[in-house]
Amino acid sequence: MNKGVLFIISAPSGTGKSTIVGEVLKADPNIRFSVSATTRDPRPGETDGESYYFMSREKFDSLVNSGGMLEHAEFCGNCYGTPKGPVFKNLEEGHDVILEIETVGASQVMEACPEAVGIFILPPSLKTLYHRLKKRSTDSEEVIKDRVSKAAGEVRKAYKYDYVVINDDLDTAISEVRQIISASRKLTKLNSDTIEGVLKEC
Amino acid sequence: MNKGVLFIISAPSGTGKSTIVGEVLKADPNIRFSVSATTRDPRPGETDGESYYFMSREKFDSLVNSGGMLEHAEFCGNCYGTPKGPVFKNLEEGHDVILEIETVGASQVMEACPEAVGIFILPPSLKTLYHRLKKRSTDSEEVIKDRVSKAAGEVRKAYKYDYVVINDDLDTAISEVRQIISASRKLTKLNSDTIEGVLKEC
Repeated sequence: MNKGVLFIISAPSGTGKSTIVGEVLKADPNIRFSVSATTRDPRPGETDGESYYFMSREKFDSLVNSGGMLEHAEFCGNCYGTPKGPVFKNLEEGHDVILEIETVGASQVMEACPEAVGIFILPPSLKTLYHRLKKRSTDSEEVIKDRVSKAAGEVRKAYKYDYVVINDDLDTAISEVRQIISASRKLTKLNSDTIEGVLKEC
Repeated sequence: MNKGVLFIISAPSGTGKSTIVGEVLKADPNIRFSVSATTRDPRPGETDGESYYFMSREKFDSLVNSGGMLEHAEFCGNCYGTPKGPVFKNLEEGHDVILEIETVGASQVMEACPEAVGIFILPPSLKTLYHRLKKRSTDSEEVIKDRVSKAAGEVRKAYKYDYVVINDDLDTAISEVRQIISASRKLTKLNSDTIEGVLKEC
């Protein structure tokens, strides 16, 4: 059995990343979603192991210190991270795994797992993003402008990813991500075993 | 209109590269095949501009000297090369172009066109390749063994390509190459204009 492929999917907020990932997961049950760990308290309706792995600060720190996190960061006094165990278990079992993650965490994962495949979802333009955010949020003009300017910084990090997909039409973006997931299995960086295998049997 | 993508396809001889390329071209009329130039004489049935661009040594050398060849080499006293003009014209017109080429020429093209996408076709194993060559040729055992040992050297160059595809089942290999061709449009290295375009309209 072949090992699964680890996909890192990032996008500026408001780009529709979660919708795309949700549809891709629905369409292919072989793909698993990586659940994050957090030290924050569960909110009503959140389930441990589905929404997040909820854990104490002590457990979180001990996982980090033992090298058990693929990446981790602190926001507003709470820790968030990607536990290695479930990701590697899924990959070993032949499942692809999607890590939906912001660009700083993505960098850490790319360093730890150079064979991971990065996909960056882009808005059609920052102008469109501004209008999307304006339409769906009750935030002030200032807050929205700040988010767009942060998004610009994120977009510049797209160069670190293997693929970029523009989410202009949602269905097109979903089918492009699915196509990338299929073709990625043939990326040379995922196939050194294949190449060595061809050479071995002489 | 988007520019086309340049695909470099290489494989050890006996791997079925030409059959795969032929089927891929048949399935998608938007993809063009890059015709090589040569100084050797046409053989019966060969047409200028289809089989090869047949040209004098003087014209060939003058193209090389004016930077008009993407790559070139000499075999058995004859020169072979890839004229830039038709390739770039097709790409500008939005056609993808397939360059079916050996690994030394491929290296030259990759250097000249870093945005080209390399696909390396692998035999399932060198053993299979040996049996395929044995079955279809009247060459001596020694000649076949020499070809397999050369193939091993070629396979080691697969690491320079973006993708590797094993030709075990022909239909699978064809559909994998077609999938790669579709997904490749989203490779980040082909999309700096897209990324800069998103950032521009602020």
